[in-house]
Amino acid sequence: MQRTIIPDIIEKQTICSLKKSNTIFEAATMMCSANIAAIVIFDDASKVIGIVTERDLTRRGIAKCLDPKKTAIEEIMTKNPETLSPNDTANDALELMQIRHFRHLPVVEGETCLGVVSIRDLFVAAKTALEENLRETEAFVFGDRYGA
Amino acid sequence: MQRTIIPDIIEKQTICSLKKSNTIFEAATMMCSANIAAIVIFDDASKVIGIVTERDLTRRGIAKCLDPKKTAIEEIMTKNPETLSPNDTANDALELMQIRHFRHLPVVEGETCLGVVSIRDLFVAAKTALEENLRETEAFVFGDRYGA
Repeated sequence: MQRTIIPDIIEKQTICSLKKSNTIFEAATMMCSANIAAIVIFDDASKVIGIVTERDLTRRGIAKCLDPKKTAIEEIMTKNPETLSPNDTANDALELMQIRHFRHLPVVEGETCLGVVSIRDLFVAAKTALEENLRETEAFVFGDRYGA
Repeated sequence: MQRTIIPDIIEKQTICSLKKSNTIFEAATMMCSANIAAIVIFDDASKVIGIVTERDLTRRGIAKCLDPKKTAIEEIMTKNPETLSPNDTANDALELMQIRHFRHLPVVEGETCLGVVSIRDLFVAAKTALEENLRETEAFVFGDRYGA
């Protein structure tokens, strides 16, 4: 059976979110304290309007000499990011992220953000599924031969 | 046959390196222009003495309010990083990086840096190898049954 984003890849997560008016300094400190690499940006109705990652902070923040305490996240975030649905399959999500070079995507149902999936989560799941599949197929092969 | 770091995961790379006295601004601009997430830090003899990543720039740079143009890489780099050998197997390297939470490691032979491997390179290789393995095993199974 195909694995889906929820519940196979992530379960209910505590969402780390900020507003677009928060500073990139606040984004960096939240990434540090929560040990995450991406933060979703909500509007006042908690709808996802952006995502900001370590890469954005590096390339659009430090490399552009922006002052972390005076720069709003809005200036560097990726606006209206692609999102995943909880029912998307892990394989489809991995393919999308590989083709489009995304490392993190919000998981959204209706207008509610349920979590953030990283490409690493998806690789781990894909590798585990393939290993299980291979073990089962090999068991079938050897079972067949031992019984011959 | 086991895949090894060189030549199966990376081939000869143009190394993006800086000195420890370069600034974190220079590290961020190099990451941006070379489209990479980690830079190796060489001493004057081109020996690897550190590595600096987007994560370091975020957590040890922006979150600590360091001035990018006045902060030397030395202040935020990971000193004397673990390294991989070109003959290490891809599976062993992936396991090491997963257990130790590394996303990038330099590949070193003697005192010469040959490249940088990312955990994503290793996941892609592991997934491809498992898929091939599964295809071959399935071909064996079906071949066996069709011929029965």
